[in-house]
Amino acid sequence: MNPHRHVALPFLLALAASLAFGEQALAGADPLPSWNDGPARKAIVGFVHTATDESNPSFVPPAERIATFDNDGTLWVEHPMYTQLAFALDRVKALAPDHPEWKTRQPFQAVLENDLETLAASGQKGIAELVTTTHAGMTTAEFEAIVTDWLAKARHPRFGRPYTELTYQPMVELLTYLRANGFKTYIVSGGGVEFMRPMTEKVYGIPPEQVVGSTIETRYEKKDGRPVLMRLPHIDFIDDKAGKPVGINKFIGRRPVAAFGNSGGDREMLEWTGAGSGARLMMLVFHDDAEREYAYGPAGGLPDTKFGTFPPSLMDEAGKKGWVVISMKNDWKRIFSPAP
Amino acid sequence: MNPHRHVALPFLLALAASLAFGEQALAGADPLPSWNDGPARKAIVGFVHTATDESNPSFVPPAERIATFDNDGTLWVEHPMYTQLAFALDRVKALAPDHPEWKTRQPFQAVLENDLETLAASGQKGIAELVTTTHAGMTTAEFEAIVTDWLAKARHPRFGRPYTELTYQPMVELLTYLRANGFKTYIVSGGGVEFMRPMTEKVYGIPPEQVVGSTIETRYEKKDGRPVLMRLPHIDFIDDKAGKPVGINKFIGRRPVAAFGNSGGDREMLEWTGAGSGARLMMLVFHDDAEREYAYGPAGGLPDTKFGTFPPSLMDEAGKKGWVVISMKNDWKRIFSPAP
Repeated sequence: MNPHRHVALPFLLALAASLAFGEQALAGADPLPSWNDGPARKAIVGFVHTATDESNPSFVPPAERIATFDNDGTLWVEHPMYTQLAFALDRVKALAPDHPEWKTRQPFQAVLENDLETLAASGQKGIAELVTTTHAGMTTAEFEAIVTDWLAKARHPRFGRPYTELTYQPMVELLTYLRANGFKTYIVSGGGVEFMRPMTEKVYGIPPEQVVGSTIETRYEKKDGRPVLMRLPHIDFIDDKAGKPVGINKFIGRRPVAAFGNSGGDREMLEWTGAGSGARLMMLVFHDDAEREYAYGPAGGLPDTKFGTFPPSLMDEAGKKGWVVISMKNDWKRIFSPAP
Repeated sequence: MNPHRHVALPFLLALAASLAFGEQALAGADPLPSWNDGPARKAIVGFVHTATDESNPSFVPPAERIATFDNDGTLWVEHPMYTQLAFALDRVKALAPDHPEWKTRQPFQAVLENDLETLAASGQKGIAELVTTTHAGMTTAEFEAIVTDWLAKARHPRFGRPYTELTYQPMVELLTYLRANGFKTYIVSGGGVEFMRPMTEKVYGIPPEQVVGSTIETRYEKKDGRPVLMRLPHIDFIDDKAGKPVGINKFIGRRPVAAFGNSGGDREMLEWTGAGSGARLMMLVFHDDAEREYAYGPAGGLPDTKFGTFPPSLMDEAGKKGWVVISMKNDWKRIFSPAP
């Protein structure tokens, strides 16, 4: 008989007890400390319990635990304008010395004169011209370097912090909580894929291959004998509104079981997610906190906005379909992530 | 003092020894049993050791371990024709009763008369018409069901087995070996994404979200009040040749460190992969085994082919750039995966 057997057993039991204690301590630590104990938080925790409980008929196998998040206004600030638009305006100003013709050509003139009203009047066509001008004509590697440099230096006009610090701490906790429960977290945004990828891993823990967004065309060529991908001034795909389920199907190929947005641009993504079977969670961030962030959205009688509008019809649909509306004012203890 | 301490220590040592023995036993099991001990196998094992050795200057951090695989002719059989083309031809025949006009309209007439020469003469335009006709006009869910059903019933004309069993066992072992070493394995194929996704998880262990391929346009709509994605008869993206680095950049957003192909359609993917820094592995499967599979490729003085041609210029580039050419005849002990 193994002489260690009798003594090893109590040791193992002690070890097991200590491991169990460690797990309990871990389970006891609140994974969502920035969420008030309201209906939104309860919906999240309830969903995760259901989805991960094998004995529950709505159990979701790990491979199917796909959660998709809009970015602007859902994970980080989108006012006074989309961060990517702020980037495009800064690029126009940086490139202006090489383009004297822009002084008298719209929409560039409006940008150079900080005339946002005229810029807005140029509509989608004007914005598309801004984007293709400032986001194309370089290699993908060059663009990544430009974005990375800009994100490091640019500051938000109201909060004076880098945009990458103006992420919503409760949502970052939610991402982490879902991943700890076997979910694969994706961004599905109207923003440009290659504008987001340089920062999503560091800021959200979401790797580049889990970022779905709008794309411009690229072309493979040789430059000084080395292969490069050149960014062309043509929009390839717009990942917004009805484009979101299309993008999800194209890039991911699975229907999400949880989806998070904050505007009319996310409606179809939530519908598509909700139309599947098994445990589901659809949530909309509602910007009703002018003091700590911004308040906008005609659905709540708040001012309408060009960026991230939340129409009354979306609030109606949310009510009918059981989508959970997150009140930033009431559901969140804090808004932004702490300074690093 | 803990009375268990003195006895627990030898127990732990014994436990450690037994774990170490277990690991050794595991390391001793050959992860690539279908590969002969030749240069191809040595290149694979050498690459994995280098990429995963933290003390090696060419070490690749786990997050960057992206390996991309062509599908047709690299992971499964592509002769006498691409599996997806066999599917399209079968679909034409299945749909023909509803389309009497096809009897006298090319390329449909050629398909119905099994006249592959006339079909081939219809060129890319003819094939595109076949694909859009047979792959569109239904929802994504309906298409998935059609593909799944066909894959279960169709048999390869020479081997008499389902196409999903005509996967190359040495490559399946390679996929598993790479994943066991922290690599994320992707398919990057000229084939249709939604033709492949229904089978890649089961057949290769590659989940749908890691399949990159050609796409057709889809449109989000409501059908009987439920959201669906309708497949439209328009090609969205061709993931072949110079399109492969474009697809990799769009879908994955990282440059692979290892890439595997078998034809001129994979050249740019291997160039793009090889142009990065750190450990790299680029390999080409060469079909030189007429007895166990097929022999084609003018590079080896073998017959040329419409499906998966391997031109002499590709063999030259492989030689110059250190890409490893896998001889199916000499490097593989067996070709196909065992029947389940």
